[in-house]
Amino acid sequence: MTPAAGAATRLFEVETRDPRTRARTGILRLPHGEVKTPVFMPVGTQATVKTVSNRELEEAGAQIILSNTYHLYLRPGENLIREAGGLHKFMGWKRPMLTDSGGFQIFSLSTLTKIRDEGVEFRSHLDGSRHLLKPEDVIRVQLSLGSDVIMPLDECVKHPAETAYIEKSVALTTEWAKRCKLTWARFRDEGTTPGSLLFAIVQGGCVPELRKRSAEELVPLDFPGYAIGGLSVGEPSELMYSTLEATVQHLPEEKPRYLMGVGLPNDLFEAVSRGVDMFDCVVPTRNGRNATVFTPDGKLNLRGASFAKDWRPIDENCPCYACRNHTRAYLRHLFNSEEYLAGRLASLHNITFFIQLLEFMRRAIEENRFSEFRAAFQARYNRPGAQSE
Amino acid sequence: MTPAAGAATRLFEVETRDPRTRARTGILRLPHGEVKTPVFMPVGTQATVKTVSNRELEEAGAQIILSNTYHLYLRPGENLIREAGGLHKFMGWKRPMLTDSGGFQIFSLSTLTKIRDEGVEFRSHLDGSRHLLKPEDVIRVQLSLGSDVIMPLDECVKHPAETAYIEKSVALTTEWAKRCKLTWARFRDEGTTPGSLLFAIVQGGCVPELRKRSAEELVPLDFPGYAIGGLSVGEPSELMYSTLEATVQHLPEEKPRYLMGVGLPNDLFEAVSRGVDMFDCVVPTRNGRNATVFTPDGKLNLRGASFAKDWRPIDENCPCYACRNHTRAYLRHLFNSEEYLAGRLASLHNITFFIQLLEFMRRAIEENRFSEFRAAFQARYNRPGAQSE
Repeated sequence: MTPAAGAATRLFEVETRDPRTRARTGILRLPHGEVKTPVFMPVGTQATVKTVSNRELEEAGAQIILSNTYHLYLRPGENLIREAGGLHKFMGWKRPMLTDSGGFQIFSLSTLTKIRDEGVEFRSHLDGSRHLLKPEDVIRVQLSLGSDVIMPLDECVKHPAETAYIEKSVALTTEWAKRCKLTWARFRDEGTTPGSLLFAIVQGGCVPELRKRSAEELVPLDFPGYAIGGLSVGEPSELMYSTLEATVQHLPEEKPRYLMGVGLPNDLFEAVSRGVDMFDCVVPTRNGRNATVFTPDGKLNLRGASFAKDWRPIDENCPCYACRNHTRAYLRHLFNSEEYLAGRLASLHNITFFIQLLEFMRRAIEENRFSEFRAAFQARYNRPGAQSE
Repeated sequence: MTPAAGAATRLFEVETRDPRTRARTGILRLPHGEVKTPVFMPVGTQATVKTVSNRELEEAGAQIILSNTYHLYLRPGENLIREAGGLHKFMGWKRPMLTDSGGFQIFSLSTLTKIRDEGVEFRSHLDGSRHLLKPEDVIRVQLSLGSDVIMPLDECVKHPAETAYIEKSVALTTEWAKRCKLTWARFRDEGTTPGSLLFAIVQGGCVPELRKRSAEELVPLDFPGYAIGGLSVGEPSELMYSTLEATVQHLPEEKPRYLMGVGLPNDLFEAVSRGVDMFDCVVPTRNGRNATVFTPDGKLNLRGASFAKDWRPIDENCPCYACRNHTRAYLRHLFNSEEYLAGRLASLHNITFFIQLLEFMRRAIEENRFSEFRAAFQARYNRPGAQSE
C-alpha cells in the first residue's frame, strides 16, 4: 500500500485552516515519523547541526532536520554513508530527515560550474576535484543517504537575472524534475527506495508568469510535495512575498509546501500566512555562532558591553538549556573568551526559538487566533529600537 | 563550628587504605558538597570546561572542577564575578570547585614577568596591560570567586633548574604561603570567606631535600590540604615518580593531597599508589579537541584513515553520550569536516574516561584489589602497539 492509498496512511493531511489567511496546520507522515506543520527544520549541513547534539535537537523539539547532499556527496561520500546503513544511522538521528539536491551548493560553493542539459559539472570546493552530477545521480545519492524527503536537481537562479535566462532555467528545472522522478520511480519499483519521498522544486525567479509556468509544469507530474526554491537570494522582502503569493496559488491545496532556505521571523509569518508548511534556514546556527540570539524582543548581539552585568537569561520564558542555566553576562564572557560553549549555547537557544515560533504559529492556527498571535508577536519583535531585520 | 571541630564534620577522612601501596580512599567535605577521593578534576580554565556543558560534566560524574584564577582575574575580572555572586553562580556550576592561584599561568602565559618578594609583576597575555599580584591579592581574588578550595601564590620552577634557584624559590613559596594564610585568616575572621579552604603548595623541583624542606616548612602551618606543585613540567617520568615519593612521605596522613596538573593514566596510577588523592589535567579536553581519545586499549587519533569505516563506538563499555550514540567513523567525519561537535564529543568521552578511571581505582582500593586492577589496566593500556604515552 503506497502512502496515498488510504486516508489513514495519507502522506499529508491538512488539519486546520485559518479562516482569515491561507495559513494551515497539517501532518506529514514520513518513514521516520510524523511531522506536524508548519514546521522549522534545523540545518545539519555536514551530517551535524553545527555545535549541537541530537539529544539537544530532540529536546528543542526538532521534528525533522535537513542535511546537504552536496557536502555529504563530497565528504564522507555516498558509498561510506550507504555502508553505514544510511544517513540516519551514520549520524545517529532517529527522526525524519530531508536532503536537498545539492544544486544550490554546486552553484554557490563550487567553482567552474557548467550547467548542461545533461547535468552540472563542477569542481569541489574542498579539493578542486572535477565532478559531473546528473539529475539521476542526485536521486541515487539521496537514496543512498536514505532521507525521508529528497529533492530533484534544480537550478537556483540568482537575483537579479534576465527573464530570458530564468525562462530557460525553468524549462531545464522541469526537464530535470521529470528525469529525477523517473529515476526515483525506477528505484521504487526495484524496491530500493527506503520510502523516500521526492518533492518537486518550483523556480521562476521573481517573475510571476514564470513561477506559474514552473508550477503548472510540475503539478501534473503529481509529486508528493512542492518546494519553492530561488527565494531569499538577495531580492527585497516585498518582492519575495509577492513572488511567494504568485507561486503558492498554483500549488495543490492537499500537498505540503516547503519554502527553501527561509528564514527570519517576519518572513516565516508572511510565508505561513500564504500557506507554506515547511521551512529550513541556517540562521539559528550561523547567527548563534556569531553571538546573535533571537528573542521575542528582537535580536541581541551578546558581545555588546551592555550585557557585561546582565544577569538575566537570553529570554526568561525560553525553555532551552542555555536560558534555564545561564545569564547573558556569562554568555558574553564566553563569546569574548572565544569559548566553544558560547556558540553552542547560542545556537541551541536560536534553534529552540525558531522551532517554538513555528509551534506557536501552529497552535494559534488551531485555536483560530493566528492573526492575533502574529500581530502581538510582530508588535513586540519589530518595536522601534529592536533589531529585527 | 569549624570543619575540623568534630568527626562528623571533618574536612577530610581517609576511608580505606590499600594494604600493599600507599593508595587510599577518602571523603573531602567542601562547602558545595562532598568529594570522594581519589578524584579527577576537569579543568574549566575560563569558567567553562572547554566544549562541554555543566549538565554533561555532572552526567560524566564530575564531582569537582578546577578553574584558573589568572584567566578569570584578567577576564571577566574579579569584580564582575563577585557581583554575579561568585564563580559558581556566574558559570552555573553547583558542585565543588577548586581554583589555582594563577601563579603557574603568570609564569607560563604572561610576559615580562618579574618575581619579587612583594609579589609577581607581569603583563597580560590578552592586552599587554601591567599587573602586580601579591600573595594577599590572589587570596582576595579567589575569595571573590568563592571557590571551595583556593591556592596560595607559589613559584612553579621549570625543569631543569639550578638547585640554588630552587632553594631560593622554596623559601619564597613558604613566605608567600604564610602571607596567604594570614590574609585568608583575616577574611575568615571578618566572616567574608565563603567557607573556602586554603591548601598549601609544596615545591622544590626534583631535589628530594628541597621537597622535604618545603613540606617541613609548610606542614607546621597546618593547612587543611597539601598540593604538590612543580611536577609534570618536563622532567622524565621516573624523576617525577621519585620526586613524588620524596614529597608525599613528608605530608600528613590525615590531610588531602593534590598533585597539580597531572596527568596521563600511567601517572595517575603511580600517584594514587603513592597516596595522592586529587588530580587535575587539561589532557582530556585538549587532546579531545585534537581528535585524540583515550580507551582501555590506549589512545586513538580519530583522524586516522583506519577509522573511516569503523562502526564501533570509541569504547563499547563507556557510558558517555558519544559512545552510546556515535561511531568512530562518524567522529572521524566530524573531525575531518572541522565540525564543532567533533571536539565536543571527544572531550566529553575523555572527561568521562578520566573520571571513571579514578572511580575504578577508588572502588578497587575499597575492594582490596587495587594492585590487580592496576596490573590489568596497564597490561591492556600499555600493550605493545598501543599508544599509551
